[in-house]
Amino acid sequence: MIRKRLLVSAIALGSALAVSIPAMADDGLGDYRDRFEPLPYLPPIPADNSLTPEKVELGKMMFFEPRISSSGVISCATCHNPALGWSDRIPRATGHDGQVGERNTPTVLNSGFLDSQFWDGRAADLEEQALGPIEADVEMAMDLDQALKRLEGFDVYQRRFSEAYPDDENPINGDNLAQALASFQRTLNTPNSPFDRYLRGDMNALDEQEKDGMVAFVDNGCVACHSGPNLSDGNFHAIQVPGSEDEGRYVVTGEESDKYKFRTPTLRNVAVTYPYMNNGATETLEEAVSIMGQEMLGRDFEDKEIDNITAFLHTLTGEMPEFEVPALP
Amino acid sequence: MIRKRLLVSAIALGSALAVSIPAMADDGLGDYRDRFEPLPYLPPIPADNSLTPEKVELGKMMFFEPRISSSGVISCATCHNPALGWSDRIPRATGHDGQVGERNTPTVLNSGFLDSQFWDGRAADLEEQALGPIEADVEMAMDLDQALKRLEGFDVYQRRFSEAYPDDENPINGDNLAQALASFQRTLNTPNSPFDRYLRGDMNALDEQEKDGMVAFVDNGCVACHSGPNLSDGNFHAIQVPGSEDEGRYVVTGEESDKYKFRTPTLRNVAVTYPYMNNGATETLEEAVSIMGQEMLGRDFEDKEIDNITAFLHTLTGEMPEFEVPALP
Repeated sequence: MIRKRLLVSAIALGSALAVSIPAMADDGLGDYRDRFEPLPYLPPIPADNSLTPEKVELGKMMFFEPRISSSGVISCATCHNPALGWSDRIPRATGHDGQVGERNTPTVLNSGFLDSQFWDGRAADLEEQALGPIEADVEMAMDLDQALKRLEGFDVYQRRFSEAYPDDENPINGDNLAQALASFQRTLNTPNSPFDRYLRGDMNALDEQEKDGMVAFVDNGCVACHSGPNLSDGNFHAIQVPGSEDEGRYVVTGEESDKYKFRTPTLRNVAVTYPYMNNGATETLEEAVSIMGQEMLGRDFEDKEIDNITAFLHTLTGEMPEFEVPALP
Repeated sequence: MIRKRLLVSAIALGSALAVSIPAMADDGLGDYRDRFEPLPYLPPIPADNSLTPEKVELGKMMFFEPRISSSGVISCATCHNPALGWSDRIPRATGHDGQVGERNTPTVLNSGFLDSQFWDGRAADLEEQALGPIEADVEMAMDLDQALKRLEGFDVYQRRFSEAYPDDENPINGDNLAQALASFQRTLNTPNSPFDRYLRGDMNALDEQEKDGMVAFVDNGCVACHSGPNLSDGNFHAIQVPGSEDEGRYVVTGEESDKYKFRTPTLRNVAVTYPYMNNGATETLEEAVSIMGQEMLGRDFEDKEIDNITAFLHTLTGEMPEFEVPALP
């Protein structure tokens, strides 16, 4: 009875709000809004890696654990730095012994929403992705077996892995390490950006320029590839940005048709994950918009259009995940 | 009137507690306790660098800022890693291009209580210390002027420095950077360890073995050098630990009498700041206690004594500072 009354009150309140607050009125851009989806609070969870608190907490420890690198000072968090939008804000990743890699570090924020991982999509999911940087010569440069051996040396990790994988006799193994890292990363999402609030009905969450940018983003066809909740279609598209010779997905598949193709990157938090493009050679968002117009759409955007689209892209910065740096053993 | 009544009640309660809870009774070790001091919540603040929230917050940003290193990926927090007791848990600091330095990274925890900084005391205070690692070739390898130039490139830092140093026309300079870093570090203290609680009257905060360890620590003379709130006398003592050729303070002063001398390190949080000694070659606390007995006291401790002193040293782990990783521009 009380419940029913509350429901009725809520409906009454809802109607009252719809009538009395202009912000809830439609701004006439419904057709544009329909091309987008707000970011959910969690990405899809794979059936074979259920998202348990034990795995997430263990994955967080592993993410900040530098001793699974050969130098003992590089962790996932070195390049996916939470102080820097969970990326590194330098052109190309810098890892073991100061070696500079070939590509710009993608943010791990919202990476659970992507259909494949790495610029060239060579990993199908976060589980497949997680161990790559540990073993890569230019990143953490660590033999996986040796990394696992180091972890086994800590009582705390023996206990944590056992708690996260209670059915495994020897829970400290590569698959479980990858599962834990993937689980932690699936919690690093940035919902409730101004754009998400706008899509959910708060017509004042975007100002006029930002809305003009959204319209330009749709009308010019950016949305063809930057679609879905994470603003990535998950497909591979050919692009050669200034200064890049990178053959992209071709390196993975050997298919001529994959030359220079990269998986569409997310645009979520793009304002705080500079610099841009696979080679990180593009410093500003304005430049990036201009280059994408030329390379992908064959268009020279006018300055005003660039400014509007850039303003729109700034509305894709969401709430950063709350977390505490773990105390490692 | 109410206040007076509360006071009377508190006194009555206090007496009741003293009578009924044996923990408040004296354990007969008052003479030993008198040799120590609990850690205050804040270290001394220098008259020319008052501890303002603006400086502390700016200093925190600078502490986590990797772009004041030449590679763009090394920050103070790389070696003074909050996940690892604000140290690095490797034998010797590993910095720019994977170069390995000469000495073990000291924790920044409670460093504001030390009478001088660095193993050889070559900096008088945190202000003098702060810029050293930025410019050191084997650490962040960055020219200071270039670091300041990078900082100037960010509007956020222009604003933050102006707010922290409102009287300065050009607030982004080396002195202010050092002051801000020092201010942040003065907040990184670990009060309220079991030993501090014991010193404040909670007789149950230490168990019997830990108390035996405290007694051994005093009776064997460890307390001669490891004294004061941070368990360091601030003086320089000659020691050559296994594997070390390091001439210590001699390198700073050129005085023959300073050969192999190092400033007494803090023992606060020593259980979580392994490995030990100036060259980081000592992995366990038990080994470290044994070596100190031999080198400094000319004594071969028995196993039981080592275990007891080690148990006591574990009670020096305090409450880790709460902080949030800052969002950098």
